[in-house]
Amino acid sequence: MIEEKVRKADRIIIGIDPGTNVMGYGILGIYSRQPAMIAMGVIELSRLGDHYIRLGRIFQRVSMLVEQYCPDEMAIEAPFFGKNVQSMLKLGRAQGVAMAAAISRQVPITEYEPRKIKQAITGNGAASKEQVSNMLRRILNMPQQEPELKLDASDALAAALCHFYESGKPTTAKGPSSWKEFIARNPDKIR
Amino acid sequence: MIEEKVRKADRIIIGIDPGTNVMGYGILGIYSRQPAMIAMGVIELSRLGDHYIRLGRIFQRVSMLVEQYCPDEMAIEAPFFGKNVQSMLKLGRAQGVAMAAAISRQVPITEYEPRKIKQAITGNGAASKEQVSNMLRRILNMPQQEPELKLDASDALAAALCHFYESGKPTTAKGPSSWKEFIARNPDKIR
Repeated sequence: MIEEKVRKADRIIIGIDPGTNVMGYGILGIYSRQPAMIAMGVIELSRLGDHYIRLGRIFQRVSMLVEQYCPDEMAIEAPFFGKNVQSMLKLGRAQGVAMAAAISRQVPITEYEPRKIKQAITGNGAASKEQVSNMLRRILNMPQQEPELKLDASDALAAALCHFYESGKPTTAKGPSSWKEFIARNPDKIR
Repeated sequence: MIEEKVRKADRIIIGIDPGTNVMGYGILGIYSRQPAMIAMGVIELSRLGDHYIRLGRIFQRVSMLVEQYCPDEMAIEAPFFGKNVQSMLKLGRAQGVAMAAAISRQVPITEYEPRKIKQAITGNGAASKEQVSNMLRRILNMPQQEPELKLDASDALAAALCHFYESGKPTTAKGPSSWKEFIARNPDKIR
């Protein structure tokens, strides 16, 4: 069933919501310009005591997702401001290993601030996680999820859907927003 | 010549000094409990404009070093405090992709604060980069290096030498200092 969904998709976007306790993921397929959820879930990290084991788990699981679903692009929820330098260093590491799993398989990455994702899905940059999740379910015609799973995974799926909406917009002259676009514009910078 | 040095070593430690503009690396071989430099150098990132291309280059080059030198362990210089959350997020990402290259090849990682590395090499935690480099050259009986290359690469080699010194110390009851040690102590936590 999942394999058929992957095979029939015109385009597949993996959304990632990285964290050091839980990492959410969502796989979005585009079928004749219509988005649909293929898979979503969370990678539980809080029971793994050691920091490196957590990072290893993120790399391993994101690598598996990339191999399983062959996404064309990765969209990542990336807060640019955090509580303190310590938590940002840890978040950066979690993002870094997830990004490495994509980069090492030539999957281009685009990052979106949480506010931007909420704005794209609900029209309100200050929407709650529940509002994002409810709107996502309506847009993608999704069945009810387990309440515990819902929010972390749906944030990741929301990042993927945000990327689908954003990548359909006409390109502005502001500068490249993704790696793929950067490469397309600057072939001489790649060695 | 390098291949023979790798083959004859009892143990190989790769030291990494990650940065978003330049990443230094040093390969240390241990021969009958005597440390010697096998290779050192820098990965230049400042000419690569795009953030993801820089992260991709770090992952690719550290992966190559791990494949070429087959290190038993990685020692990483990791400042725990930085100027601001933005720079710490970027540093965390650079560390994360370098760590992913090690983790994905089952190389255990230990991190050391800059102060700890300086202390281990020179006996002074506030030593300058030049003092660390000069002491390192004396300890390892190294030839004169190009001045431009010297400091970034020698910081990485210093991290590897610090790890050699630290790993020879008796284990304290304070807790595991590395992934390998954590796994050895907690076999039931690995799934």
